[in-house]
Amino acid sequence: MGSSVTAESTTDVLIIGAGPAGLMMATWMAKCGIKTRIIDKRGSKIFNGQADGLQCRTLEILDSLGFGTRAWQESNHMLEICLWNPDEQGTIHRSDRIPDTIPGISRFQQVVLHQGRIERWFLDCMSETSGLHVERGVLPTKLSIDESAVEDPDAHPITIHVRHLTEEEATPKQSSTSTNGQAVQDGLFRSNMSADDTAELIKVAELNKKANTEEIIHAKYVLGADGAHSWTRGQIGLKLEGESTDYIWGVLDIVPITNFPDIRMRCAIHSASNGSVMVIPRENKLVRLYIQLTTTEKTAAEGGSKADRSKIDPDVILQSAQRIMAPYTLTYRKLDWWTAYQIGQRVGTQFSAYERVFLAGDAVHTHSPKAGQGMNVSMQDSFNLGWKVASVLKGISSRSILKTYQSERRKIAQDLIEFDHKFSRLFSGRPAKDVMDEAGINMEGFKEAFVKGNMFASGIAVDYGASTIVAQPGDPANEGDGTDVAISDPKLRVISNQVLAPSIEVGKRIPSVKILSQADARPWHLQERLPSNGTWRVLVFAGDITQPQQKERIERIGAAFSDTEAFLTRYTGDKFGSVIEVLAIHNAPRHSVTIFEFPEVFRNFDPVDGYDYEKIFVDDVSYHEGHGEIYKNFGIVPEGCIVILRPDQYVSYVGSIDDVDAVDKFFSGFMLPATGRPVVKQVNGH
Amino acid sequence: MGSSVTAESTTDVLIIGAGPAGLMMATWMAKCGIKTRIIDKRGSKIFNGQADGLQCRTLEILDSLGFGTRAWQESNHMLEICLWNPDEQGTIHRSDRIPDTIPGISRFQQVVLHQGRIERWFLDCMSETSGLHVERGVLPTKLSIDESAVEDPDAHPITIHVRHLTEEEATPKQSSTSTNGQAVQDGLFRSNMSADDTAELIKVAELNKKANTEEIIHAKYVLGADGAHSWTRGQIGLKLEGESTDYIWGVLDIVPITNFPDIRMRCAIHSASNGSVMVIPRENKLVRLYIQLTTTEKTAAEGGSKADRSKIDPDVILQSAQRIMAPYTLTYRKLDWWTAYQIGQRVGTQFSAYERVFLAGDAVHTHSPKAGQGMNVSMQDSFNLGWKVASVLKGISSRSILKTYQSERRKIAQDLIEFDHKFSRLFSGRPAKDVMDEAGINMEGFKEAFVKGNMFASGIAVDYGASTIVAQPGDPANEGDGTDVAISDPKLRVISNQVLAPSIEVGKRIPSVKILSQADARPWHLQERLPSNGTWRVLVFAGDITQPQQKERIERIGAAFSDTEAFLTRYTGDKFGSVIEVLAIHNAPRHSVTIFEFPEVFRNFDPVDGYDYEKIFVDDVSYHEGHGEIYKNFGIVPEGCIVILRPDQYVSYVGSIDDVDAVDKFFSGFMLPATGRPVVKQVNGH
Repeated sequence: MGSSVTAESTTDVLIIGAGPAGLMMATWMAKCGIKTRIIDKRGSKIFNGQADGLQCRTLEILDSLGFGTRAWQESNHMLEICLWNPDEQGTIHRSDRIPDTIPGISRFQQVVLHQGRIERWFLDCMSETSGLHVERGVLPTKLSIDESAVEDPDAHPITIHVRHLTEEEATPKQSSTSTNGQAVQDGLFRSNMSADDTAELIKVAELNKKANTEEIIHAKYVLGADGAHSWTRGQIGLKLEGESTDYIWGVLDIVPITNFPDIRMRCAIHSASNGSVMVIPRENKLVRLYIQLTTTEKTAAEGGSKADRSKIDPDVILQSAQRIMAPYTLTYRKLDWWTAYQIGQRVGTQFSAYERVFLAGDAVHTHSPKAGQGMNVSMQDSFNLGWKVASVLKGISSRSILKTYQSERRKIAQDLIEFDHKFSRLFSGRPAKDVMDEAGINMEGFKEAFVKGNMFASGIAVDYGASTIVAQPGDPANEGDGTDVAISDPKLRVISNQVLAPSIEVGKRIPSVKILSQADARPWHLQERLPSNGTWRVLVFAGDITQPQQKERIERIGAAFSDTEAFLTRYTGDKFGSVIEVLAIHNAPRHSVTIFEFPEVFRNFDPVDGYDYEKIFVDDVSYHEGHGEIYKNFGIVPEGCIVILRPDQYVSYVGSIDDVDAVDKFFSGFMLPATGRPVVKQVNGH
Repeated sequence: MGSSVTAESTTDVLIIGAGPAGLMMATWMAKCGIKTRIIDKRGSKIFNGQADGLQCRTLEILDSLGFGTRAWQESNHMLEICLWNPDEQGTIHRSDRIPDTIPGISRFQQVVLHQGRIERWFLDCMSETSGLHVERGVLPTKLSIDESAVEDPDAHPITIHVRHLTEEEATPKQSSTSTNGQAVQDGLFRSNMSADDTAELIKVAELNKKANTEEIIHAKYVLGADGAHSWTRGQIGLKLEGESTDYIWGVLDIVPITNFPDIRMRCAIHSASNGSVMVIPRENKLVRLYIQLTTTEKTAAEGGSKADRSKIDPDVILQSAQRIMAPYTLTYRKLDWWTAYQIGQRVGTQFSAYERVFLAGDAVHTHSPKAGQGMNVSMQDSFNLGWKVASVLKGISSRSILKTYQSERRKIAQDLIEFDHKFSRLFSGRPAKDVMDEAGINMEGFKEAFVKGNMFASGIAVDYGASTIVAQPGDPANEGDGTDVAISDPKLRVISNQVLAPSIEVGKRIPSVKILSQADARPWHLQERLPSNGTWRVLVFAGDITQPQQKERIERIGAAFSDTEAFLTRYTGDKFGSVIEVLAIHNAPRHSVTIFEFPEVFRNFDPVDGYDYEKIFVDDVSYHEGHGEIYKNFGIVPEGCIVILRPDQYVSYVGSIDDVDAVDKFFSGFMLPATGRPVVKQVNGH
């Protein structure tokens, strides 16, 4: 064949790679109504292997996109970590149990599920929200940036050449993307193939229509979410920096046959001298075992530090596990997937070129899989980026906010690498025989690191530093990865007053407890009312509005926010709620007030739909689901406060209930007037 | 056209009518792997109107089928009932608030949702479980029963002639099935039409392939779930008995524009002299108003008791509502649906012919819609019937259990009629002006009836009497509707010992609290471990098995249940769990035991899948979801007990932990030996 027709087209956003990071970006674009294409060189999505843990924070994010419940229901829940160590005779025994998720930090707990299912929900959500589909079997071949146009909002400064592959070219030789993995299944056992993937498979057959054609795409923004060997990263000349270690690990996804009593718990097993195993129980009776390989020969290449992969197969890995877990027996009849890897930690030097081509996920950070962070941090990269790009494309925000992607996420990647480095070494080391054994790992120290690591691993600890969109004190350049994200006009800088609500921490995601809808008494988790649709939120904690001074305060806010010169009209246009949504949470007794006690900015009237009943909430006891006590739990002062939340649920600002000017100033720091803005297509809720 | 080819076919079960009762039956059949057809004369499913409340118990049932969460998420939750009455000046005011669902009776609360969505989930579930689809546009024309063959298990004694309609014939003139309703929507507002109904609409187009052909179907069992005007009922010569009243009600489904403060609450509004309104807030900003029409003229027909329907339209109904709700204003721009009806209560004299042709739902009971019972009781009819028919067809149970359908459900229908009768009259009456006003309704009495009615309306109070499958004391003929459902061999009768677990009430559905899986510490609601798949369950409450006497007890049970002469092998065959599943719930501290402390009957070993980790539970505190305290909450004695649950979660038996013979006897009363039984196709879990 060889010949090809060259088509040419434009798009606002082009996403390269349809793994979790790329799909998260695409889902944001769908939710925000942005013209987007997402391409992947592979001809079909993956069906096995590549399981991973979902952190608490990731589940909160998936829930904000509308499919947290699916994740929660289908996944295996990990509740307890059991630590197994050698006793004095060198025989392994359970030495400790700790909760896998720190109680109270989130309404979700860490779970495990096959990556293919997670991708499925993204695909469904994209399709239902805006009809966006992944174009598979599309290989990018060339990328160039017109540097002169990168600051022009109307320009398409990026040109990408792509080639539509034939089905044969697009089919990976193995169903795993791991370079050393191999799908080993018996033909009857396709644990992760689910009925609703059929449509996906049919799509593959459509590939060939365009096969062997070339296309030139002009894009305003590009995301390279194309994995550890990122083609996009190479095109824009960026690099990963870091190191690798000597430790070699094997991974088996099996249905175990064993008398080990904790096989359905997450376990860290340190044997006396045969290495370590981590047990990760999964869905469908599967268990993932991470098994340290202590007997693998090294190749002569790279100074003898590289493992000789030809010597590794599932039997070798299983035998290692059997030695480590003895005297317990372990075998299997069903093997779903296996691989082997050497630990390495690397992070990208830059996360974007000109804030036009961005990188996310494995393209900018790689590390060991055992801490269960990979997919989470990758998705959270583009969850951080997506709404920002959409907001700029829609003319809501200036391009200045885009620098915060690198300052916020590269910092996280660095923290992750450090965490993984420490954790991996502790896990791979031999347990100390006694206090004199300095070469060994102290098991009490390991437990402490595990407990401490749990907070990091939850994703809840993420704390974005001062910037245009986070009203923290401190030097914006020092708070992130060093990128300058200070506001251009210092007069517009706003600083939070954290003491008004100590537990609504500026820079972190807002925590969640239950509040009641004033209009119908229904309990909601606060986060359930903060869906990811690109909307900023101003939360007014109104206090007890049966008190005259609180009633006055809320009336003043109503008047100020309704002023046609003020930020709401200026940046939102006629229709409140489409760019910035205003919510009230009061703590008068529910029965003592109705929504009509609140100014109309909290219950917009629509001539067709009547009043909006969904913006006023109360901190009171529910009939069936207890009392969230949000004022008490968040430490909110009696006179209340005003909180600004980013579209990704992170806290931008906490300030006085009387300081409406600060709110106006905050938005003025990066928002652009609604006048003349293209019509906003808004996807509300989910 | 007119000409037709006559095809002939056989099926195990034919279901006539694809409303909630028919779909529930079909779903059971799909779950149990029974050869089934379900036909409906209409060409497409409904898209608007016909909303209804979902009781707590209905939500529990939907959850047991795998889609309780969808119902819970998509529906509008009703938390509070507000009672509005005239004050001394005759102006309406809020006089009381009561919880809409009694706290603590279920893990779900009453919700409201459009019937079309509920049907959607059934259709999805049927399709995913066994590929079963509704055949639409199929009209039954003739039904005959070969009386000589009704007791022959291999016979197909029922012959039904059906005609495949053309699309035109199958399209109802209005999208509501109400004979007096009318779909009035503006063209832009199809609130209840959802993307995933598209496939359904495409199916309609396929109707015409078979159009104008006739078919003769030979069935083993038939369910007539074809509504109040049931064709099936007429064919088998059964009747409804009851009465109707003078009260006329209008129904409006609107997006209200109003300053009435409780429009998002369920409200019962009694005006001084203009009649009553019930407010039922729904999904998508809709509100259903049941409005008493006090000004409608009667026709001369039927002695002047019949309302003149030609005088009723949405404006007339709205004006009535405006008079009742004054001084509050009420209007609308969006009208989704409307109808009007006269209250009437009727119940079928028999629920089946020869226990071969059954009737369910509106075909055997009609009543007013305001109590929100209709769809619930209809679905619960066939939820009661489905597993029984499947069990007989699979050769597991004798036909004797089929009589319990009428004894159990006709009793419920009678109770429902009585409840509705009382409730409707209270609701339709004029409030008493003072204590001397004997013709008026006492409003305190109304509130009391409402509170009491709430327990009935929850569906939780259902209590099936003594029979072959409920080991209660009492005369089986007197406990239900009068049908004789006594066990044929009196020596096999077993009587429960309720004091061993007072809150696991024999005849009622088992309540639910959280228990933890021993193997992985995951909290589950007990009911989540009782999915509707046709399986009976033996729950062994094992007590504290770290105590030697409890350990001995559980070992004895293990030995007795594993005996190849005993009921498990006799009725289940080789593979435990496919007909009767054995579960253990102990209350030793979770950390003090592992699953290996339990006999193998609680953790069956499979040579390919290893041990079963999902059958042993513990009553202990969880890390994140509290402590269910099942022993305390259910009042279980320290030495434990044995509980038998029907496949529909109703309690058959509570007895001594030492009396394994009683369990054997209980199953011997109606089960048939596994030897020679056709191979059982089991759909486990959901």
